[in-house]
Amino acid sequence: MTIQASNNNVWVRRYKSIKMQGGVMLPDSAQNKLHKGFIVSAGELVSDKKIKDGRTAVFNKTAGFEIEEENITYLILNQGDIIGTDVFKNEEMV
Amino acid sequence: MTIQASNNNVWVRRYKSIKMQGGVMLPDSAQNKLHKGFIVSAGELVSDKKIKDGRTAVFNKTAGFEIEEENITYLILNQGDIIGTDVFKNEEMV
Amino acid sequence: MTIQASNNNVWVRRYKSIKMQGGVMLPDSAQNKLHKGFIVSAGELVSDKKIKDGRTAVFNKTAGFEIEEENITYLILNQGDIIGTDVFKNEEMV
Amino acid sequence: MTIQASNNNVWVRRYKSIKMQGGVMLPDSAQNKLHKGFIVSAGELVSDKKIKDGRTAVFNKTAGFEIEEENITYLILNQGDIIGTDVFKNEEMV
Amino acid sequence: MTIQASNNNVWVRRYKSIKMQGGVMLPDSAQNKLHKGFIVSAGELVSDKKIKDGRTAVFNKTAGFEIEEENITYLILNQGDIIGTDVFKNEEMV
Amino acid sequence: MTIQASNNNVWVRRYKSIKMQGGVMLPDSAQNKLHKGFIVSAGELVSDKKIKDGRTAVFNKTAGFEIEEENITYLILNQGDIIGTDVFKNEEMV
Amino acid sequence: MTIQASNNNVWVRRYKSIKMQGGVMLPDSAQNKLHKGFIVSAGELVSDKKIKDGRTAVFNKTAGFEIEEENITYLILNQGDIIGTDVFKNEEMV
Repeated sequence: MTIQASNNNVWVRRYKSIKMQGGVMLPDSAQNKLHKGFIVSAGELVSDKKIKDGRTAVFNKTAGFEIEEENITYLILNQGDIIGTDVFKNEEMV
Repeated sequence: MTIQASNNNVWVRRYKSIKMQGGVMLPDSAQNKLHKGFIVSAGELVSDKKIKDGRTAVFNKTAGFEIEEENITYLILNQGDIIGTDVFKNEEMV
Repeated sequence: MTIQASNNNVWVRRYKSIKMQGGVMLPDSAQNKLHKGFIVSAGELVSDKKIKDGRTAVFNKTAGFEIEEENITYLILNQGDIIGTDVFKNEEMV
Repeated sequence: MTIQASNNNVWVRRYKSIKMQGGVMLPDSAQNKLHKGFIVSAGELVSDKKIKDGRTAVFNKTAGFEIEEENITYLILNQGDIIGTDVFKNEEMV
Repeated sequence: MTIQASNNNVWVRRYKSIKMQGGVMLPDSAQNKLHKGFIVSAGELVSDKKIKDGRTAVFNKTAGFEIEEENITYLILNQGDIIGTDVFKNEEMV
Repeated sequence: MTIQASNNNVWVRRYKSIKMQGGVMLPDSAQNKLHKGFIVSAGELVSDKKIKDGRTAVFNKTAGFEIEEENITYLILNQGDIIGTDVFKNEEMV
Repeated sequence: MTIQASNNNVWVRRYKSIKMQGGVMLPDSAQNKLHKGFIVSAGELVSDKKIKDGRTAVFNKTAGFEIEEENITYLILNQGDIIGTDVFKNEEMV
């Protein structure tokens, strides 16, 4: 994908380890487990410089909306939806 | 057209590949498919410098409003409606 | 007229080509045709420098309010009502 | 009067040519005629530098409130109520 | 009193010439007469530099609230309540 | 106490001279008497530099909320709750 | 944990000395006792520089929400929820 995130948007691919089904988190995932994904692209106006391509984003359960491009589902977050970041640890993506 | 977008407005021409009929997206276009168009003109106050003339804008389904000029329909977006940009890949426009 | 627009106001004279009657656009003017006028004066606080005296403003149908001065009707817009500008092409004004 | 306007306030004296009676504009003054007055004092925080002492202010009909000082009635406007300014042309004041 | 106003507060002592009784302006004071007082202290964050200790403040009738300190009643205003200032002319204070 | 106030918070200890009982001011304290306390700590983001440790704060009756630490009751105010400051004059604290 | 807080978020681990059960504070903890925790990570946009990793945060009872990571419960606060900070004094954490 050659799309780049705009404004303060952050394009994320969810990790498979956070088990979801039909947009709903599976029961064996505890309610306050963290939601995580891979940052594919962070917009030009994102002001926290640790929120950048190639890192892992930690975010609120209900944040953002999903879109599909070339058969891959992306979660579109605002910068403010992200509560933490991490180094990428080779997680498998949805 | 010699009109230039003002303020943080972005003038866009939709791509035909996103099938619309009477303002409604056709069923074979999945609900979370991306909406895309060609950026004809981006206003002086647009602060994300990747949102510029000649690139492709990715935007939310319900964003903006349409106007007609010299028999061409333009979608008028605000900068904030754009969630991503891409290089232009010779898509046919509405 | 020696009046100069203040703040972020823009004083505009509508073009006759946009047919209006009693403040209502005539049926043969399509709903999404552009509204246009001549920028007589743009206020000191207008931050988009392409919105300036002598250019053509493109604006939303319901924007602004009208006042009369020396038998000429002016439309008073805010900067944000203007979605585009153009070079002036000798249009006849209301 | 030695009072100076504060903040973004503008002290104005209405012109007699705008016929008012008991705070209501007279019928022979058309609804969209301009309201005008002489700028006696513009506050320190007024950011449009053409809104200054000795010029004529053009403003919205319902803007501001009136106070009396040394038997003269002043209209207290906010900077944002002023839609235009003009040079002073020896108009008689209320 | 050694108290200094904080933030954008302005401590004022009303002039006796503005006749008040029980917080209500007396009938012989016309409704749109100016309310005035002596600026005892203006807070550090007051941005209009003409609103300062030792000058006269002109303010809206219903602005602020009163407090008592060492048997003197002070009117606590916000900077924005002040519509004008004047030089002090030896008015007697409440 | 080694706690330092954060953000624009101000930690205050009320003076005993302002007679309170169960959070309610006693009748013999007039309604518009000043509320005062000792500034134990002012947060880093407090922008009025006269609001600082070791001075007396004057504040609105209903401002802030109380917390207890090491058997001392502190009133937590926001910077904006403070209408004046004074030098500390050895008042006894609650 | 290698996660770093984003934006103005602050990741905190509550101290055991503040007795909680099922998200509710125990009765023997007085209503206005302070809530405290260890600052694990403070986001890049936190503007009060005393709110930083390794210090103790003091915060409002109802502030933030909890998430779990590697069997440890973190309280996610916004900068503005923190009313004070302290040096860390080897408190045991939940």
